[in-house]
This record gives sequence, structure tokens and C-alpha cells, in this order.
Amino acid sequence: MWEGESTMAQSKGTVVLAYSGGLDTSCILVWLKEQGYDVVAYLANIGQKEDFEAARKKALALGAKKVYIEDVSREFVEQFIWPAVQANALYEDRYLLGTALARPCIARRLVEIAQREGAQHVAHGATGKGNDQVRFELSCYALCPKIKVVAPWRLPEFYQCFPGRRELMDYAKKHGIPVPVTPKTPWRPGVWSPSPLQPTCVPVKVTNTGDGATRSSALELFVYLNDIAGKHGVGRIDIVENRFVGMKSRGIYETPAGTILYHAHLDIEAFTMDREVRKIKQGLSLKFSELVYNGFWHSPECEFLRECIGHSQEPVEGTVRLSVFKGHVYILGRESPRSLYNEELVSMNVQGDYEPADATGFININSLRLKEYHRLQSKVTVKQDE
Amino acid sequence: MWEGESTMAQSKGTVVLAYSGGLDTSCILVWLKEQGYDVVAYLANIGQKEDFEAARKKALALGAKKVYIEDVSREFVEQFIWPAVQANALYEDRYLLGTALARPCIARRLVEIAQREGAQHVAHGATGKGNDQVRFELSCYALCPKIKVVAPWRLPEFYQCFPGRRELMDYAKKHGIPVPVTPKTPWRPGVWSPSPLQPTCVPVKVTNTGDGATRSSALELFVYLNDIAGKHGVGRIDIVENRFVGMKSRGIYETPAGTILYHAHLDIEAFTMDREVRKIKQGLSLKFSELVYNGFWHSPECEFLRECIGHSQEPVEGTVRLSVFKGHVYILGRESPRSLYNEELVSMNVQGDYEPADATGFININSLRLKEYHRLQSKVTVKQDE
Amino acid sequence: MWEGESTMAQSKGTVVLAYSGGLDTSCILVWLKEQGYDVVAYLANIGQKEDFEAARKKALALGAKKVYIEDVSREFVEQFIWPAVQANALYEDRYLLGTALARPCIARRLVEIAQREGAQHVAHGATGKGNDQVRFELSCYALCPKIKVVAPWRLPEFYQCFPGRRELMDYAKKHGIPVPVTPKTPWRPGVWSPSPLQPTCVPVKVTNTGDGATRSSALELFVYLNDIAGKHGVGRIDIVENRFVGMKSRGIYETPAGTILYHAHLDIEAFTMDREVRKIKQGLSLKFSELVYNGFWHSPECEFLRECIGHSQEPVEGTVRLSVFKGHVYILGRESPRSLYNEELVSMNVQGDYEPADATGFININSLRLKEYHRLQSKVTVKQDE
Amino acid sequence: MWEGESTMAQSKGTVVLAYSGGLDTSCILVWLKEQGYDVVAYLANIGQKEDFEAARKKALALGAKKVYIEDVSREFVEQFIWPAVQANALYEDRYLLGTALARPCIARRLVEIAQREGAQHVAHGATGKGNDQVRFELSCYALCPKIKVVAPWRLPEFYQCFPGRRELMDYAKKHGIPVPVTPKTPWRPGVWSPSPLQPTCVPVKVTNTGDGATRSSALELFVYLNDIAGKHGVGRIDIVENRFVGMKSRGIYETPAGTILYHAHLDIEAFTMDREVRKIKQGLSLKFSELVYNGFWHSPECEFLRECIGHSQEPVEGTVRLSVFKGHVYILGRESPRSLYNEELVSMNVQGDYEPADATGFININSLRLKEYHRLQSKVTVKQDE
Repeated sequence: MWEGESTMAQSKGTVVLAYSGGLDTSCILVWLKEQGYDVVAYLANIGQKEDFEAARKKALALGAKKVYIEDVSREFVEQFIWPAVQANALYEDRYLLGTALARPCIARRLVEIAQREGAQHVAHGATGKGNDQVRFELSCYALCPKIKVVAPWRLPEFYQCFPGRRELMDYAKKHGIPVPVTPKTPWRPGVWSPSPLQPTCVPVKVTNTGDGATRSSALELFVYLNDIAGKHGVGRIDIVENRFVGMKSRGIYETPAGTILYHAHLDIEAFTMDREVRKIKQGLSLKFSELVYNGFWHSPECEFLRECIGHSQEPVEGTVRLSVFKGHVYILGRESPRSLYNEELVSMNVQGDYEPADATGFININSLRLKEYHRLQSKVTVKQDE
Repeated sequence: MWEGESTMAQSKGTVVLAYSGGLDTSCILVWLKEQGYDVVAYLANIGQKEDFEAARKKALALGAKKVYIEDVSREFVEQFIWPAVQANALYEDRYLLGTALARPCIARRLVEIAQREGAQHVAHGATGKGNDQVRFELSCYALCPKIKVVAPWRLPEFYQCFPGRRELMDYAKKHGIPVPVTPKTPWRPGVWSPSPLQPTCVPVKVTNTGDGATRSSALELFVYLNDIAGKHGVGRIDIVENRFVGMKSRGIYETPAGTILYHAHLDIEAFTMDREVRKIKQGLSLKFSELVYNGFWHSPECEFLRECIGHSQEPVEGTVRLSVFKGHVYILGRESPRSLYNEELVSMNVQGDYEPADATGFININSLRLKEYHRLQSKVTVKQDE
Repeated sequence: MWEGESTMAQSKGTVVLAYSGGLDTSCILVWLKEQGYDVVAYLANIGQKEDFEAARKKALALGAKKVYIEDVSREFVEQFIWPAVQANALYEDRYLLGTALARPCIARRLVEIAQREGAQHVAHGATGKGNDQVRFELSCYALCPKIKVVAPWRLPEFYQCFPGRRELMDYAKKHGIPVPVTPKTPWRPGVWSPSPLQPTCVPVKVTNTGDGATRSSALELFVYLNDIAGKHGVGRIDIVENRFVGMKSRGIYETPAGTILYHAHLDIEAFTMDREVRKIKQGLSLKFSELVYNGFWHSPECEFLRECIGHSQEPVEGTVRLSVFKGHVYILGRESPRSLYNEELVSMNVQGDYEPADATGFININSLRLKEYHRLQSKVTVKQDE
Repeated sequence: MWEGESTMAQSKGTVVLAYSGGLDTSCILVWLKEQGYDVVAYLANIGQKEDFEAARKKALALGAKKVYIEDVSREFVEQFIWPAVQANALYEDRYLLGTALARPCIARRLVEIAQREGAQHVAHGATGKGNDQVRFELSCYALCPKIKVVAPWRLPEFYQCFPGRRELMDYAKKHGIPVPVTPKTPWRPGVWSPSPLQPTCVPVKVTNTGDGATRSSALELFVYLNDIAGKHGVGRIDIVENRFVGMKSRGIYETPAGTILYHAHLDIEAFTMDREVRKIKQGLSLKFSELVYNGFWHSPECEFLRECIGHSQEPVEGTVRLSVFKGHVYILGRESPRSLYNEELVSMNVQGDYEPADATGFININSLRLKEYHRLQSKVTVKQDE
């Protein structure tokens, strides 16, 4: 079947493949070569535990003409997770968006490598039914409209050869691709936190009051939280969610650090942000979460939202004390130099600048509309009774 | 000081007092009589543990001309908590609205009693800085515009006499009002779930898979969940929230049953409701939560929202399995005859009616706008560089 | 080229074509036959001026095996335009959605005919870049998921044959399709108003106070307004809009009756609807307009919105007096038995039930948050200055 | 009654009165003096036609110890009207917010003068039922929390003396206050346009293509448009609106320049702004309009919205051609170096970078959800039929 390999000399050009080192993208690497592409493999390090050098060797052994191992973990935390923490981003009330945040980060570097290599194509191993294909490709097109995307799992000539895992394994064996003996646990980028656009409004320090340990760089802090929270099973969810392509799917997610940061940020924000600003920002965050989930991180509207949400964070500053125990995050207290909480004002024993009689006027004016409505309803009801 | 009691013969008329049996409303009861009112005491049973007969005797002993002990617990669960569960109601991302739901329920009966008794006034013991005064009074005015509200904690002639707890205790002692030895734990109405406007879309049955226990009436089910979840410390929060009157306050809340029902409903709703209906409904629920918190349950807009949200619940039906452990609720699974989750459609091994090539078109069309935007940005940037 | 016609005996089955009688769909009719389909032509009468009998003869002459001329004008007005009037539907602040409302109405009958005829296919002549293709097809799929849509303007075998009008004309001449001498004015369905889901809340009567003429059936009323307003050039706009497929396009629209009904409904609604209900409904209408524009009339979310908006219309009832002159609609006055406008309450000379001192409390409580914010800002600024 | 005038030596301090020169504020000036205040009169010139020197003399004659005539017209246009134009601000779909924009501008200077004069009080002549009292006072409190506001129309000792115009006239006559013979036309600040926060995104030049006249400073441009449009009766509306204090009121407004700028800005924005950014910004503008109407211009949330909306305006640049005729504004065309309108992309004869087959995938994926919904509905219906 592949005797025409000699014709591959007439290359279809270079393709940069988002490579994970796993079975799927290894097979895709080989298949792309068979199709006549020169393949550059790109493996993003976003903080996952991985033997990157082994992956490099594997890719070269499979015929990659070049391999990029790119450590984007710091920019992932600072430029993608931090803004999501600022937004209290939550898709459909529950999902903290781990993977959805990683895709635009990985794709951005993918496009940069393609431009550096003069490659006209990029490729990925995301399936044809999922969200990740959309996230990868919208990012690529937004950043480099002329790029061509090769998505094998959407090409009949590819996916019809591989109706199941067995065929993929057969192909791997045939082409000398090492097959993992045990099914690898699904790749989990899923830990996270937000980025220092507004230098004062991002996580800056974690202190373990138990042993006094501290972490203060974005990445270390995030990794540390992930470890601690992960041990306590914090942030595990089993949900049914709505994919952008229109189907419901079931997902089991684990975002330990993300969950801690979500609760901590929510708390300090409520402490320092004006009520009405918060309400507007909450609406923007809902939209932001949807856009990120759907793959529109690199879009004018998402950029606009990040700017707006960033603005709202200007006063968000302070310290939150919390404990992590048996899967749960408990907020114990908070303090802030920018607190809008005024103990005197709220006290039941001190009036402060507050005049109780004002509340009477406030209530009366607020009830005016309700009374008018009642008056009319009665009139209408009476008429109907007549 | 009170020698003028003889003039009380010229009654100011009857006032119905929302009476809790505690120190504050006991003092208020006596004070209202001193002011020349005939006082009818009304104590609402919304499910709290209370010695209602003792409270009745106490009120009569303090001079109430009549005492109503009203069991509104079932209507509280069915007509106020159920709609909130349907809405996934959450104020400022965290507060499940226990008290805020109880007030309009209690106030509705308060007004009914006033009308039955021909009373022109109602009174309550809520402070002048809080939300409850607003919730009580807006409810009263909305349901009976002509009612007059007496809010002693907003009247200088009252609150200036009682700048602190000590003065209140002195007054109690002087008037033979029993003073609780230990400060009573704050009254907690705070357990909850939603009401059968749409008969099929409310909690209908709880089964404890451990011991086979089941509960299927609204009230029993709710009380049972509250017990179970309460034992595991589910639903305890310590938050800073924004009151309607404009100040931030700190609140510690406990809503065990509410928390379970929140998670369970969220889950089964995601399983059965269309993605876009869900998104619209989520926006309505945000508004609903704010209105309920602010005391506008009995308002045309809140009524409108309840109708809309009720409509959205038509397909929400099914069973959720969950476990409660150490303060945390874990969703274990769900099933429903109305599920929109289609395993075949989402499967990676079966295409179902799904054509992967369609995703290419979908992505391309979605990227069109992004590419145009990029094209223009580049043009603008180039111009600026020239 | 077409010598393969003998093989057409093996029919691809029946296709129902949304036929307009114009050049494009006439060519498509012939082309579909060439492709091996039996063609049923369906021409919808939604109120446009057309010689329907001539169109029928033409379709038969071109080889249609059957022709349906369907008068859907009444259901168009009652079931599609009326709900849009109730919503004050406006896309991107300006477009009154004429065509966007007609498509789901036409498509619904198209699917019905296909089912009656046992046809597996439907076809339309909408271009591959526009909104109408989406509107037609989403409607068809939503109402009959198994239907197959043939969209020639998206099939390379069709559109590559017709890169320009000239090639289309050549094809027409060759196949005996009558070619219009003058370019026909673009087909304009664009007149509109809303449907009697809530019998009391739709336009029920128009009276011309000049000559006393009245119209009171939905369709007649609508046609009459269209004539009157059309003569005065009401409702003509020249806009750039955003298509659902991601491009901006320029459109010149004319919706005379729609414009009058928009202004009249807006006015009577403001007169009779509670302020806060109105605000919520306004948000729903924004979403409704977007959905309708994008072709999602027949969708769970649009159905949900129509129900919600319908509910809001319960009190909307009354008479609006207006004049139409030189392209402009002037509201002259309104009256309603359901008016929430209370002249006494608003009067500057009568207090009514209004206590001016209450406004003081209302303002003070509303300013509390602003004062706290100022207090903190000052503190922060002072600190920064130090 | 006022024989105690000698005691006025014990002044209540200085009050700065927002003075219009009319009957009401003239009477208030005298009355404030009677109450023991030293009165500083402040008359804001926001562009209205007025004999300011006559007003100064009148105030001094009535006993003002000092008079400020402040020309704030330029800052009104640039800092208040321009942002509203950028927002396409419209309250309840119709009202262009003229007066609502003027109040925070006038109040800001009022507070500045009070601070300069060391005055602890400010006063205004707005009635106790209207919006203007709220707008004035929230602005004052937000900018200077310690200020005390004297609002005579809410003080029983004032308004009970003046139940009607007659009593006010009697008082005027008695105190030598000149009474206007004919009722003055209501004061109309109501002309407007937006301010150069973002230097490129505000109206910069008007050219009359008829006579070649041009205006390019903010104020002149605005005044010119007001004259032109006013002559053609542009922007006159008769509406019923919802006041913040809870009542409906009828208003007749005229905002000629505002109407032109609204249409022009809407048009150029649609031409240059991304579809999704526009949609988000539209939501923000709705909120902005409500806040401005309700008097919250000087608030953290309104400031936040102005920043966000300002951001969105970065690409909004270009020229709009329009005609004004018989009360109507017609957009004739637009051009912009930042246009996102791509004639080639939208053309029916050129494919451009657009692949029609992509629309098929786009539609199919969008219909997936609708088909699933239909599938389930059918199942449910069948079950119900059984």
C-alpha cells in the first residue's frame, strides 16, 4: 500500500505536530510522514510529570525531523490560569476549565514554531467530537489566519483506518511505535491559577501555617497548592457538561490548586470589591468562562473581557486563611488593607454614620412600585369578578 | 415613667407582632403595649426546634391579647425552598438564601393574621441595619399596601433606650421578662429545598442506600436531609456578603439540606436540560437570587422569574446518587428518562449520526470572524509602524 | 455533458424545493431534475405581491411533478410576527428581522410537505454565505431530524458551473427557463407583527382617525399598516450587520408596519408593565432577537423565550395614538385600563401616598456604599502619597 | 414669624445653592437665608441660552453673599455626553438621558465650590418625587461623603408652606422676588454628545455638505448639531418612563444633537467593531444607561463601565454621511480605515477565502443539539401517548 513512499520526496511541506508522546500522536506522526509531510514534533511542558527526554528520543526515532520540548508552564500559570482565577471562571457552574485554559497556551507556541520553521501546516491529535479540536484550531487561526490545520481524526482516510484502539495498536506495532502496556491515565494538565497582568491582583504567596513552608513565585506556588490539595482529594468532580459541538458528555476532572484558588479569590474579592462592580463583573465572568470553554481565548471578545475583568481586580488584595481537609476547602478568615467591610457600620451596638430612620425611607420608596402594582391587580381582579 | 398607662385605654389599635419568643421580641411585645397597642403575637413554625407551647404561655404572660402559633413549615419547603432549588439560587456565588427565603413566607402569614384580626399594624424585631427588615416590610407592603409597619429598632424612642444588650436585659428584668441565661444560638431557619409548582420537577424521594430508609413527602424529605447532612457538617460557610442596605457584613451560615439539594439539582438539570435553555435560565436565576436576598420575593418581577424558571424545569427529572462525607457532597452518578446525554453520539469508537468533517466546517466558519479581525489588526499595526 | 440522463430513471427520490419563481430557483429546479430527483415545487405566500398561478405554470413547465402554492400569510403574521412585536425584537439595535421571521415559517410548511409527499430531501436557493441557508436548514433539522437538505449554492458541482449571473442566464436560456428582462427587485417578505398566543396582547385593531377606516383581523391590520407606512417611507434603513456565519454585510431593509408596531408596542408596554419586569424582559428580548436572526426560531431556547416573553405580556393592553409622517412615527398619546401610570402619585401639587421625607432615607441608604467606597479610596490615595 | 431674624447672626453656616435663576430656586435662596444660612449661589452654564449676568444680579439682590457663574459646557460635552454617545446610551429603549447626564456634571462643580468656600451644606431645588434629587445627592455624597444636603422640597417646613404655585408666587411677591409673567419653558439642558477619554473615538468633526460649514471642537460641533437638528424637529419624544423612586412619569424630551450622534455612532460602531465585542458592550451599555438615569454616574460601578466601554471604542473610527429631514435622521453611508466589512468576502460572485462547504458543517454541528432535543421530545411524546 505504501509503496509510493518514493514519491514522498515531493514533500507536502512541513507540519508542526502537537505531540504528547502517547499512542495517538505517535501514530499520527508516522502517518503524517506517510502522507508526505516533514514532521516537526512539539511537546509542551505545562507542568505535567513526564519524561521529556524519552519523548524526544521517541519522536526522533519515529521520523520527526526536529523536536521542540517547550517549557510553557510559567506562562500557562501566569497568563492563562491567573486571569481565570481573577474571573472566578466556572463553566456551567462547576467546571474550572483546566484543559480549556491549556489549549490556547499550547497552540500559541505551536503557531510560533510553525512560523519559525516556515511550516504552512500544524497538526494535532484531538478527536473529531470534542472541544479540544475547536480550541486548538480557533487559536491557530486567530493568531495566524493563513495556517493550515491537519486534524487526522477528522480525515476519513485516517479515521476509517482506525475504527478502534485495536487497529491503532496494530498500526503501532507494524511501524515500530512503542505501545504502552497499561492504558496511560488520561493526560491531566488540569491544575491552575491566574496571571500577573495587574501585578497586585494575583496570588503572590502561599504559607503553610502548619510547617511554615512558603512559596511565592507563580509557578511554585501553584505546583505547591496542587500537591497539597491533591493529597486531600480537593477539586474532584464528576459532571455531565455541554460541549461546544452540541453534545453532552461526561467528564471527571481534578483541579486541586484551581479549587483552592477559586475559593480564596472569591472570598477576598467579596471583601474588597464594591457590590455593584462585583455584579457586573460576575456577568462578564460568565461570558468569559463560556468563551474559554468554547475555544475563543484568542478572540477580540475574550481579550476585551480580560481587560475589563482585569480592571475590576484593582482593589482585590489581601490574605485569606483556609484549611483543606477531606476534599473540602474551608475559609477560616480574611484580612485586607483594601477591605470595604466596616465593623462599626455593621455593628448592632454602634450606629456609626448610619441613621436607622433612613431605612424606613429606603423601604418605603422601594415598596412604592409594589403597592402600585397591587393596587392595579386588585382593580383588575375586581373587574373580572364583576 | 410609665404612670401614663391609664391613657392606654385609648388604644392605638391592634398590632400583630412577629414573635420569636426570644429576648428582643419579648421586650418589644411589652414595649408595644406600653405604647398603647393591643398586641397579637404570631410565632411561625418553619421547622425550627422550639417549645412552642412555652412560647405561647410566655407571650400571654407578657400581655399578648392573643397568640398564633402557625405551622408554615410545609408551605415554606414547598412554596419557597423548592423554587430556590429549581433556580440553583445562590447569592454572590455562595449563600444559599435560607433566611431570605423564610422571611416572605413568615410575612405572608403575618399579613393574613393582621387582616383576620382587623389589625392595621404589624411589627417585627429585625434591626435597622439588616436585610430582614427589608424582606419583612417589602413583603407586607406588596401583599397589603395599607398595612402600617412598626419597626421598633428603627424608632429613636425605642432604640435610644437600648443602646446595648445590658439595657435590654434591665428592661426585661424590670418587666418580668424571663432572660435566657446563656445567649441563645442564633435562630436558624436555614434549611431548605423547592416547591411543587411543577409537580414533576421537585425533590420527590430520598433513599438512604445504606439503611434503605426513604422519605417522600416534601417536608419529611427535607428534614431528613437536613439531619443527615447536618451531622456531616455539610453546607457550613463563613462569608462576607453585601447587604441590600449598602454595607458588607460577615455571616456564618449552615444549610445542610440546601447544599445537598443544590448539588443534586444542578446535576440532574445539566443532564436533562438543553445547553442554551440552561444558559438563559442561569441568567434568570442570578437575578432571582438577588431579588430574594433583597426582599423582593413578593414582587411582579420575582413572580415573573418564578414562572420562567418553572417553565425551564419541565424536563428536569431523574435520580442522582451522591454521598455526603466530612462536609463534602460527592456526586456519584445520575440517570433519567429525559436524559439528553447520548452515549453513542459522544463515543470515540462509534460515529453515530456525527460526521467529523462537519466539525471542520464548524471551526472554519467560527474562525472567519477571528481571521478578519487579525487581518485588520495587522493592517493597523503595519500602518502604525510605517 | 448530460447524456447520462437515461440513468435518471434511477431516481434519487423526491425533493421538495422552496421555489420562488425567480431565475435562481427555476434553474435549481431544472438542475435537480438533471441530478436525478423528482422535484416538488413549493411556493409560500407570506403576503408578497406575486402572480402565483403564473409561477405554478412555470414550475410545471420546468418539470416539477407537483406544485404547492401555500398561503401561510396569516400564520406568518399571527405566529411569527406577533411574538416579535411582543419582544420589541431588534437585531443589533436596528434590524426588525423581517426575513429572519419569514424563514422558519416557510421552512415549517416545507417540512410538512416533505412528510406528506414522503420526500427525504428538501432544497432551497439560498446562497452559501448568507443567513437564510442557516435559518432554513436549522428549522428543517429541528422539526424533522432525518430530512436531507440539498443546498445547490454550497455544492461545488453546482456553484462552479455558475460563477456569475451570465452563466446562470446561459443555462436558463438553454433549458427554456424564462429569463426576467429587468432584474427583479429583491424579494421582500419584510413586513411583520406578532401572534395571538396570549389573545389579549397582540395588535387587535387599527383605526385611521383621518377617514375612520378600521382593520381588525391580524392579517388585514398588518397589510393595512404596511400600505400606510410604506407610502410615508417609514422603516427604511441602510445598515451594516453581522451575519451568523461571521462576516459583516450591508443591508437595506424596509419594514413599514413592523416599525409602527415596534413603536406602538414599546409605548403601551412601558405604560402598563412594571419597571423591573420590563428590565428582565428586555434582556430576554435581546437574546430572542439574536436567536431569530441566527435561525434558531425552532429551538428549545427560543421556545422557552417565547413562553417567558409571552408571560410578561399579560398586562400589556391599551390604545396608542400615533402619526406617520415623512418617514417618521410620532407617538401622540396612550391610554389603558391596565396603566400603572398614577397621575396623582406623580403630581407636584398633590402628595398622594408619597412622603417626601422617605426620599431622604432612600437616597441616604443608596449613598452608603458610595461613601464607604470614597472613604477607602481616600485612605488608599493618602497611603500612596506618603 | 421671622421676627427672630436677629438670631440669624448665629448662622447655620454656609450653603451653596444650585441656582437656576427661576422662581423656585429664587424662593429657596430667600428661604435658606431666613433659616439662618449664608447662601452662595451657583449657576452652571451647560450650554443653555440664559442671561447669566441678569441671574447674577438677581441672586445678589435676593441676598446671596456670593455668586458663581460657572461655564461647564465644555466638560459637560467632553466628559459626560461623549461617553454616553460611545455607549449608545438609551434608557428604556428611548430616552437619550440629557438631563441625567447634566446632573452629575453640575453636582461635581457644586461640591468643588462648597469645598472652596468651606461650606458644609449644599442645596438644590429638585422636587421630592423626581429623579434629579437622587442624581444631585448621590453625586454629592459620592464625591464628598461629609457634605450635608438641604433639599427644601423634601422638608415639611418648606413644602407645607407651598402646596401650590400660588403660594410660591405670593411668597415671591412678598420678598421682592421677580415673578416671570409667562410660565417659563421648562429648562432644557438636553443636548449632548461624548468625551475624549479615548482621543480617537469621539466626534471630531462635522461637515455640512450643503454649505461646506465645518465644526471641529467638541463644544462647537455639538452646539452646531443641536441647531441643525433642532430646526428639523429631530429627537422629540413623548414617553412614559419609570423613575428610580418607583413611579411612572410622562416626559417630553428633545435631544436633537444627541439623536444624530446616537445614530451616527451606532452606525460607525457596527462597521468597525467585532460582532461579539459589540454584543458584550451592548449589555454593558444597558447597565450604564440605567445607572446614569438613576443618578449613579459618580459610583465605582459606573466608573468601571466607562472604562470597559471606553476600551471597546478603540477601533471605532470613520466617517458617517447622513441627512436630517422632517424629524428623521437617515444614514446615507459610512467609511472607515478600521472597517471590518470585507466586500470580497461577502460578495456573491467571488468566493474569497470562503468555502461554501464549510457552511454545511457549520449548520450540521449547530443542528446536532436541536436534533437530539427533537429525538427526546418524540420519545417523551410517544410514551405519553401509550
